[in-house]
Amino acid sequence: MTTSSDRAAQSASFLKDWRTLCTIGETPDGGVDRQAASAADGQSRAWFSALAGQYGFRIELDKIGNLFALAEWTPGAPYVVVGSHLDSQPTAGKYDGAYGVAAGLHAAKRINDEVQSGAPAPQYNLAVVDWFNEEGSRFVPSMMGSSVYTGKLALETALDARDTNGITVREALDRIGQRGTGDGPKAVAAAEIHIQQGRSMEESGITIGLVHACWAAAKYTVTVHGEQAHSGGTIIADRRDALLGASHLVVFLRELANSYQGGALRTSVGQLDVYPNSPVVVPSRVELLMDLRSADNAVLDDARKRLWSEIADIEKRASVTIEVNESHKWGLLPYHPAGVELAGECADALGLTHDKVLTVAGHDSINLKDQVPTVMLFVPSVDGISHNEQEYTTDEDICAGTDVLTAVVRRLCDGELDGATVDASGYAQ
Amino acid sequence: MTTSSDRAAQSASFLKDWRTLCTIGETPDGGVDRQAASAADGQSRAWFSALAGQYGFRIELDKIGNLFALAEWTPGAPYVVVGSHLDSQPTAGKYDGAYGVAAGLHAAKRINDEVQSGAPAPQYNLAVVDWFNEEGSRFVPSMMGSSVYTGKLALETALDARDTNGITVREALDRIGQRGTGDGPKAVAAAEIHIQQGRSMEESGITIGLVHACWAAAKYTVTVHGEQAHSGGTIIADRRDALLGASHLVVFLRELANSYQGGALRTSVGQLDVYPNSPVVVPSRVELLMDLRSADNAVLDDARKRLWSEIADIEKRASVTIEVNESHKWGLLPYHPAGVELAGECADALGLTHDKVLTVAGHDSINLKDQVPTVMLFVPSVDGISHNEQEYTTDEDICAGTDVLTAVVRRLCDGELDGATVDASGYAQ
Repeated sequence: MTTSSDRAAQSASFLKDWRTLCTIGETPDGGVDRQAASAADGQSRAWFSALAGQYGFRIELDKIGNLFALAEWTPGAPYVVVGSHLDSQPTAGKYDGAYGVAAGLHAAKRINDEVQSGAPAPQYNLAVVDWFNEEGSRFVPSMMGSSVYTGKLALETALDARDTNGITVREALDRIGQRGTGDGPKAVAAAEIHIQQGRSMEESGITIGLVHACWAAAKYTVTVHGEQAHSGGTIIADRRDALLGASHLVVFLRELANSYQGGALRTSVGQLDVYPNSPVVVPSRVELLMDLRSADNAVLDDARKRLWSEIADIEKRASVTIEVNESHKWGLLPYHPAGVELAGECADALGLTHDKVLTVAGHDSINLKDQVPTVMLFVPSVDGISHNEQEYTTDEDICAGTDVLTAVVRRLCDGELDGATVDASGYAQ
Repeated sequence: MTTSSDRAAQSASFLKDWRTLCTIGETPDGGVDRQAASAADGQSRAWFSALAGQYGFRIELDKIGNLFALAEWTPGAPYVVVGSHLDSQPTAGKYDGAYGVAAGLHAAKRINDEVQSGAPAPQYNLAVVDWFNEEGSRFVPSMMGSSVYTGKLALETALDARDTNGITVREALDRIGQRGTGDGPKAVAAAEIHIQQGRSMEESGITIGLVHACWAAAKYTVTVHGEQAHSGGTIIADRRDALLGASHLVVFLRELANSYQGGALRTSVGQLDVYPNSPVVVPSRVELLMDLRSADNAVLDDARKRLWSEIADIEKRASVTIEVNESHKWGLLPYHPAGVELAGECADALGLTHDKVLTVAGHDSINLKDQVPTVMLFVPSVDGISHNEQEYTTDEDICAGTDVLTAVVRRLCDGELDGATVDASGYAQ
């Protein structure tokens, strides 16, 4: 039985470790810069390993650099895997990913402390994880570590990915001494907690979000082909300006989003590179990434059709050719309903408000839930700010989230979600 | 008296040297890559120095890396400066700049051969020049060497300019051993020959273009400020997407050009950089360069006014702020009419067709003409292609151009343009 004074002490312990983590890779404007396999990412991993050792866990590193802290209570039993990621965008907030790892570590510490104090060992063992390269800002694709772990991405493909300086994942992991030899623990269930990257929970005033599905999404790598020419000497009629074509595409994507009621579609272009990118040269090539998301499969499909038709039109208007490759496409992705219910019970028992929410952003748990029963939790983010140095969640909320995560993980370790399935019928693909 | 068989031998000699130069920094697609102070630029400079030595000239290197080959016939007399630039865009054609240097070198060789054979020494000495960093693709600003030489740009500012890897001009010049200690020869007149970067001469079937003015131009460095956010989680209404603002600007600039009859305005954005340029992050900042050109000062001024008004509108539409800095602005820039006339006489004497033309592109001679009487010549470029690996001018035309340049330089050395002035009255500023 955990008393409220126990809980206050546990929260204080959690916040102490959390504040230390926040200083690693700190930026002058209050955020962090810990891109995957950077020196700062290496430092955050050293923090994780040292703390895990101090709390009595064994460290294991797999071949793609997923870092596990293992609490083995029942030799030979599989593991509940709880965690998130320590890597960040270049100028990122402190909470995205890192909060879920710190909370997972403290959930494991609390359960382990109980077992060490004489509580019966759970049916399953517990692994806290820092998934490698969730963000995908330095190495594409994102969610790399969990994708390799779940067999969705070939190890060699991931290790061969290069950053813009030509450094491979293999080299970068070796430089920080974080490329392991194992395959990681065998998972039987999974849990992750994260700040909500949106403002709906803050607006409705709930503390715990029970993620029941991920928005449908379609992602594209696009190359606009034009022709290099002198930007002064070449008459307008002769130009095949790749940047003009790309700009039409960016503008249209926003118009497309605005054309659906109630924010049903979100579109964006976050990455765009111009070649040769020289002051007086008409660009011959632009490479960009398009991202379309919706909670409604029908809206996403309609938007895609309209996009194809517009692309053909832009090709004519800008005298360019546009090559589009659909790199990712998924319909609305449900989590395990039994996990949502279990998490709601845990929040109730702690007297915390909660509601079912959707995630728009991708998370490592999206990979995990295709393999094992998985619970995804959110805590609110002030003003819904994320991927921004001003990202902020109150201490009260991160502590409450850690308490719920601990309760969820404890029940997962007791096998309560064994045999749980996903019912996709309510989520037309 | 130069006979036609002499001329054929001179052309053969020119073409031989020209073909060697074309192999330096050659690209697989038939162009060259000799960005300023790169290894390939260093090799082309070594070619220049070796050939100049072989032809009896003395090499001098000034503090900003302008490379001069000096023919000194009259000790103490000032110099006619003829040449262009050996540096290139990243994937460039072989003719842009390099042709003018090779032609200048052969013009000097021919005149020097005459003097060595007993012809009277001209009134002035002759310097062939490779102006440093005309292109501006690696180091901004363009026309760097001639700008420093003519006192328009401070030496230290130029030496401190950095490429995208943070390397300064000073370091880059030192690496190829091309930062000198002198100030270069004192100029009394100047000449440059270049391929036309446009197709008007080819269309009208003339061999020699007598450049009488440069188009008016306005150039801007622009920063679009938005706010970094998660590209999935952030609702559209909350976004301040810098790339959307930048894209509206690129699209508007083309509409602006199209709104004037007869191609009176040319606009372009050749360079655009996105920050943080990550797949799932709404861009917080975009930096780009805008370029507007016209042969009509009134058109350019009208276009600028409309652009300001549109920028205010884009700021509202895309919820961004746009910071604009006018880095260059000039009205229609006339060359010396007496130089145009002199060049026409030289072409006539050689039986070559000619006409007055405007240059849209900038050239080093634009800096020179503000200091000394200056002649600018063009030869046609097939299909008007430039800043492209397919850039091509026939051997016949480059040989004809070299013949005219030689005749022009000979007369400049005899002081024929002494006291010539520019009459700007026909070219409202």
